[in-house]
Amino acid sequence: MQTITVALDAMGGDFGPRVTVPAAVQALSHFPELKVILVGDREQITYQLTYLGFTPTSRLIIKHSERSISNCEKPSLALRNSVGSSMRIALDHVANGEADACVSGGNTGALMALSKFFLKLLPGIDRPALVSALPTISGKRTWMLDLGANVSVDADTLFQFAVMGSALAQVHIEKAPRVALLNVGEEEIKGNDLVKRCSELLSQTKEINYSGYIEGNQLFYDVADVIVCDGFVGNVCLKSCEGVAHLFHQKLKNHFSTSTFKGWIAQKVFSHLFNELKTLNPDQYNGASLLGLRGIVIKSHGQADSSAIINAIGEAVYEVKQQVPSRISDRLEAVLLERHY
Amino acid sequence: MQTITVALDAMGGDFGPRVTVPAAVQALSHFPELKVILVGDREQITYQLTYLGFTPTSRLIIKHSERSISNCEKPSLALRNSVGSSMRIALDHVANGEADACVSGGNTGALMALSKFFLKLLPGIDRPALVSALPTISGKRTWMLDLGANVSVDADTLFQFAVMGSALAQVHIEKAPRVALLNVGEEEIKGNDLVKRCSELLSQTKEINYSGYIEGNQLFYDVADVIVCDGFVGNVCLKSCEGVAHLFHQKLKNHFSTSTFKGWIAQKVFSHLFNELKTLNPDQYNGASLLGLRGIVIKSHGQADSSAIINAIGEAVYEVKQQVPSRISDRLEAVLLERHY
Repeated sequence: MQTITVALDAMGGDFGPRVTVPAAVQALSHFPELKVILVGDREQITYQLTYLGFTPTSRLIIKHSERSISNCEKPSLALRNSVGSSMRIALDHVANGEADACVSGGNTGALMALSKFFLKLLPGIDRPALVSALPTISGKRTWMLDLGANVSVDADTLFQFAVMGSALAQVHIEKAPRVALLNVGEEEIKGNDLVKRCSELLSQTKEINYSGYIEGNQLFYDVADVIVCDGFVGNVCLKSCEGVAHLFHQKLKNHFSTSTFKGWIAQKVFSHLFNELKTLNPDQYNGASLLGLRGIVIKSHGQADSSAIINAIGEAVYEVKQQVPSRISDRLEAVLLERHY
Repeated sequence: MQTITVALDAMGGDFGPRVTVPAAVQALSHFPELKVILVGDREQITYQLTYLGFTPTSRLIIKHSERSISNCEKPSLALRNSVGSSMRIALDHVANGEADACVSGGNTGALMALSKFFLKLLPGIDRPALVSALPTISGKRTWMLDLGANVSVDADTLFQFAVMGSALAQVHIEKAPRVALLNVGEEEIKGNDLVKRCSELLSQTKEINYSGYIEGNQLFYDVADVIVCDGFVGNVCLKSCEGVAHLFHQKLKNHFSTSTFKGWIAQKVFSHLFNELKTLNPDQYNGASLLGLRGIVIKSHGQADSSAIINAIGEAVYEVKQQVPSRISDRLEAVLLERHY
């Protein structure tokens, strides 16, 4: 069995080693091929491991880091001052081949800047993009990108996002992924210059199964396998959906806890419904991939708990097995060849 | 009692006179001061009125139109070919003072283009904006703009949206409305150039109670009274929220209809919860205002049913009573004065 080594930024995310260390330990039993390099403050990590009654093994090693990058640090500054930070050390392990993937719950902008600088972009890619799988009503998933790595892009970059998203979705599903552009309407005349120009590019590309525009209310209805938008729109849109989903959960929860009898009925009668609703909460899916790099980088949600971080590690393992970066390269090459001839 | 005359584009929206005519008839009993001018195909309108056993009165008159503007017509073309269309005739009634407000469920882009051209903009306003009230968890409402009238704007225009939104919210609430900018993060360094520049302008303006950035997941949590964004982001964001809300409703509904026993329990025990959830569905609120014009124009949802159109008419009546356009002018003047001295 091939060993898959994941460098985990133990200091990233809102809760640091308190959740990353238990996640790493549990992930080892989930993924038998996994080896984890925990990068962070040795003392804090050791404290958590001791608390769990676990000692480092050949499958779980600690790499000490002096500091971590804060959430409010500007990406450009974070990049300049990255030496010695847990995020930088984790990425260095991927860059020099000591790890197959990096997982971090830290500052998204910094993670993008550092990844781009130290891992480099794939040929033909101008900007990395953050992609995540959304649940849909049919039970299938839809990959949406960019979710916040780039707050302003041009049509060529958006087109590259479509190519990358298509390559990633192809890894998960059999047929050619349906690629759609997020817009304010489905009609051709709708939208800003950015989506109109990108739509033209996609329409001219046979290598991409382009299905046109999609509106916000169709996101979770399985009408596309890949949904493409700029990072500003994607981030605001997904967070808004999370907001609505949380609100509904909260309303249901409040209602059930305020009355024992109702709570009892709810438990008995609605447990199936609850589980179904849970799968529609985008927040339940953790592990957005930073696509377009010569290496695998998974961004974990800042507020992710242990089980969500295990999901992120699982995504890393899967992408290593599927060799996602080289599949993106292949797809891009095919598209460029088609455009050339 | 002052008569308030609303020109209703009877052909606008996906269902035309089939829903606009019953809505107009019912609205008359809701609003005793209301007079409705139904603009559209006389034959179709009369057919619907006869079906309802209603004959035109001094409070409900018909103005015949030869044609209507289709949903896929480009705004610029719609404007050029607007003569004789129901939307144009309805707006003309506002322009020449025969009506106090116009309500239309037709093509949003066309409505904006025609309104701008025939009603003219308020001094100091570059673009009209579409604003709507969202429900929040506290029971209060939050006004969000722009919801799709402008798919690309500059910082000055976004700033004007903030001023207009603030003036409208002030009509509904007592204290100075908290104005927030929708962004990908709350920290100062986050966002694209557009929001950063607009944030600077708002920070410098004492007349506006600016509370900084807001993220998508906070939309329904009553953290701001006015949420400002460009029309592309606003439209995609609100439609996404509608999508999630519909999904939850559908899941709950499906679940209850599949089993009589569960359905019965649901009816008995969860009716209150259902009603509460319904108020969180942004789609339940109809009647977005087109702000920044020298007249009152309310955009009804294309798929609005009769009761939703009555809400839109109600919003028109309220804005006429509150003299919203002149309050926006006053607020804008105060802001410009502050900037000048």
